[in-house]
Amino acid sequence: MIGSTTSSKPHVVIVGGGFGGLQAAKALADSDVSVTLVDRRNHHLFQPLLYQVATAALSPADIASPIRGLLHQQKNCRVVLGQATGVDLAKNELVFDEGAMPFDWLVLAAGARHSYFGNDHWEKFAPGLKSVEDATEIRRRILLAFENAEHEGDDASRKAALTFAIVGGGPTGVELAGAIKEIAAKTIPRDFRNIDTRTTRVLLFEASDRLLGAFDPKSSEQARKDLTQMGVEVRLNARITDIHEHSIEIGEETIQANNVFWAAGVQASRLTKTMEGVETDRAGRVIVESDLSVPGHRNVFVVGDMAAAKSADTNKPVPGVAQGALQGGRHVGRIIAKELANPGMEIDRPAFVYKDKGSMATIGRARAVAEIGKRRMHGFIAWFLWCVIHVAFLVEFKNRAAVMLSWIWNWFVFARGARLITGDAKLTLKKIRRDEDVIPKDEVRV
Amino acid sequence: MIGSTTSSKPHVVIVGGGFGGLQAAKALADSDVSVTLVDRRNHHLFQPLLYQVATAALSPADIASPIRGLLHQQKNCRVVLGQATGVDLAKNELVFDEGAMPFDWLVLAAGARHSYFGNDHWEKFAPGLKSVEDATEIRRRILLAFENAEHEGDDASRKAALTFAIVGGGPTGVELAGAIKEIAAKTIPRDFRNIDTRTTRVLLFEASDRLLGAFDPKSSEQARKDLTQMGVEVRLNARITDIHEHSIEIGEETIQANNVFWAAGVQASRLTKTMEGVETDRAGRVIVESDLSVPGHRNVFVVGDMAAAKSADTNKPVPGVAQGALQGGRHVGRIIAKELANPGMEIDRPAFVYKDKGSMATIGRARAVAEIGKRRMHGFIAWFLWCVIHVAFLVEFKNRAAVMLSWIWNWFVFARGARLITGDAKLTLKKIRRDEDVIPKDEVRV
Repeated sequence: MIGSTTSSKPHVVIVGGGFGGLQAAKALADSDVSVTLVDRRNHHLFQPLLYQVATAALSPADIASPIRGLLHQQKNCRVVLGQATGVDLAKNELVFDEGAMPFDWLVLAAGARHSYFGNDHWEKFAPGLKSVEDATEIRRRILLAFENAEHEGDDASRKAALTFAIVGGGPTGVELAGAIKEIAAKTIPRDFRNIDTRTTRVLLFEASDRLLGAFDPKSSEQARKDLTQMGVEVRLNARITDIHEHSIEIGEETIQANNVFWAAGVQASRLTKTMEGVETDRAGRVIVESDLSVPGHRNVFVVGDMAAAKSADTNKPVPGVAQGALQGGRHVGRIIAKELANPGMEIDRPAFVYKDKGSMATIGRARAVAEIGKRRMHGFIAWFLWCVIHVAFLVEFKNRAAVMLSWIWNWFVFARGARLITGDAKLTLKKIRRDEDVIPKDEVRV
Repeated sequence: MIGSTTSSKPHVVIVGGGFGGLQAAKALADSDVSVTLVDRRNHHLFQPLLYQVATAALSPADIASPIRGLLHQQKNCRVVLGQATGVDLAKNELVFDEGAMPFDWLVLAAGARHSYFGNDHWEKFAPGLKSVEDATEIRRRILLAFENAEHEGDDASRKAALTFAIVGGGPTGVELAGAIKEIAAKTIPRDFRNIDTRTTRVLLFEASDRLLGAFDPKSSEQARKDLTQMGVEVRLNARITDIHEHSIEIGEETIQANNVFWAAGVQASRLTKTMEGVETDRAGRVIVESDLSVPGHRNVFVVGDMAAAKSADTNKPVPGVAQGALQGGRHVGRIIAKELANPGMEIDRPAFVYKDKGSMATIGRARAVAEIGKRRMHGFIAWFLWCVIHVAFLVEFKNRAAVMLSWIWNWFVFARGARLITGDAKLTLKKIRRDEDVIPKDEVRV
């Protein structure tokens, strides 16, 4: 077995060190229990700011914190770096390649991965944004796009190199689109001699009839207006039918674009499919009870993006956002703590009630849309509020300081402080005939 | 041709955007000339602080700056992202896979790469430290070493996982060794339950009879003392004879070590070998004239780690350090600027004189050795001076602020702010028998 304990205490295993898992662990801080938190990565990631790593405004370390560091003071908790391959509900074991880890209680909080709606071959052309590696890969592609365009020999190739297509009009897509347009229009024009980066085309495709589907329709319209004003081409009711290395198809229409990013579909971690007899929805999420436990298994809980949960007060689905996972993890941790403190007793478990703390999305440099309850905001005040709240929610003080400083710096000098191409920086230079004077220095090309 | 210009101005091509290349470009800021700076990476790297990225104290973006950003204000200069494959001295062309770039003047400043003294197969077991990718790879290996040790099933494997061997007793090796020992002893002990990271073995191997061979022997001895006091095992007169995946051989002796890092030998960029008829030394460096030009080619210069240059006043070799490249690049840029301003005239070229601005190396948290002229310092005052000077030399104000803040933070909380395992975080877990209680929670193992 892996990591079983000699202790006679109950063993709580938590899969995932994100918002949900971390809260569940912390809720057990005062319990007489052994907690094992398993994650396939060593760091907790503040996903709402991942698009800023992808657009070279922040460094990965600004928004990621080693899980061990976050939990080292909790003596009853240990961290295991590992990737679980399945859950054996009959034996109460978490399965790994190397063996199995028995548990008394299990909290699944491993999050979501991208869904390409059955077209998995699109993934290599259109990376998504869920991890640090995703973000630095997107960053690499964005920065290389401009380098490539600088060297392209003909107008059509240059244009394709300077065309970005983002699929998915939720907050991630909206934020990416605005940030890329901003890089092209404000941050880097002076850095290039052969191309006018301000002519970069950024297209945002959304299958439904509005952006930010989870927001109030007025906020959706505001976002569309703001993006359009920035120069982003917003395409609603647009369903992507195919993606190739240099182009994207929307039904009959084909657009030449070298850079496609995916922010459209998510599905739950594969772990949900390994549980026998457990019902999942179309996105692979476990249909949980009102207390967030798996039907028929009172000792197994699912929170965050792995769960199709409903808020007990409104019966509305709990959205796949940070607060959904955070509150779910805390709810579940408290249930376990209470039952551990009262062994053998039949405890009434509270149903999970999701408190909507509002939604926000930024649009470029100083604009955003924000909703809290019935109040809606947009423009600079919404953006400022967005900054404040996101900084406050970063888990480490160091991260808060670093992000604030980066933002202040970036904002004042119209810069982006993390413009590194790491990894493969090879360009796709075409063959150029020797006697052709292809790149005249003094002509600015589109 | 690649990037030839329609301009009738003389074309100066600079290969390398490091210390040497950047200074050469800047020295031409007021000249009536076309400058093209070519680098295979998009960023200028402050190499002296690279070991801090490798040991998770800083992020790559703190010490790297996009070359385009650094030069965008210099209107006569453009930046090309590309990898030159050779220099054709007969045709005055810089050769790429895709074509050739003609030049009137050429400055080679592409730096050095690692030398494994003919044992290139050691490279995959013992990565070096010359680029951002090298640094994040070493960081990954260091952090994974502790994760692996946490899970190892037997004492011998655990010990090997916690054994680090650094080859090369120059500043890089000394700084790496001290930093790794510090991580193990101070930063992370509380993060692990099964292992006592303070028992981590760090060995530093040096083939000669003292560390920091370019320093005064008293500084060498101070460094040896300080490292030994920290718990680093310093092995002088130790020549590595073989490196395997889990061990290292020093003659008859074999030491089980999963983590080997190479800081021992450098050789010049491959470009030096592509120049016909040009004499190079054993490390591939071009033996240049007193003005740093290639013998027989007054329009081609070599600076920094690509050159075997001598300081005209002392006839001593110019050391392969940042100041050597920086001053060389400036010297060469000024020569070209002067000859461009006086076309057709026979100008007396000044010989290069290297001004030794001192040497420094840190040893752990608050110790260092520093020499300037005849003055020697060590301990806290040397370390503080090291910090001040290195921050001052970072090229961007943003980097200076970020690094200072990271250092202040790290120092006060004994932390390292960039402890991310990015890339492949898979552990090498051994097969563990199912019925064996292998990792007892409450026992601390060595």
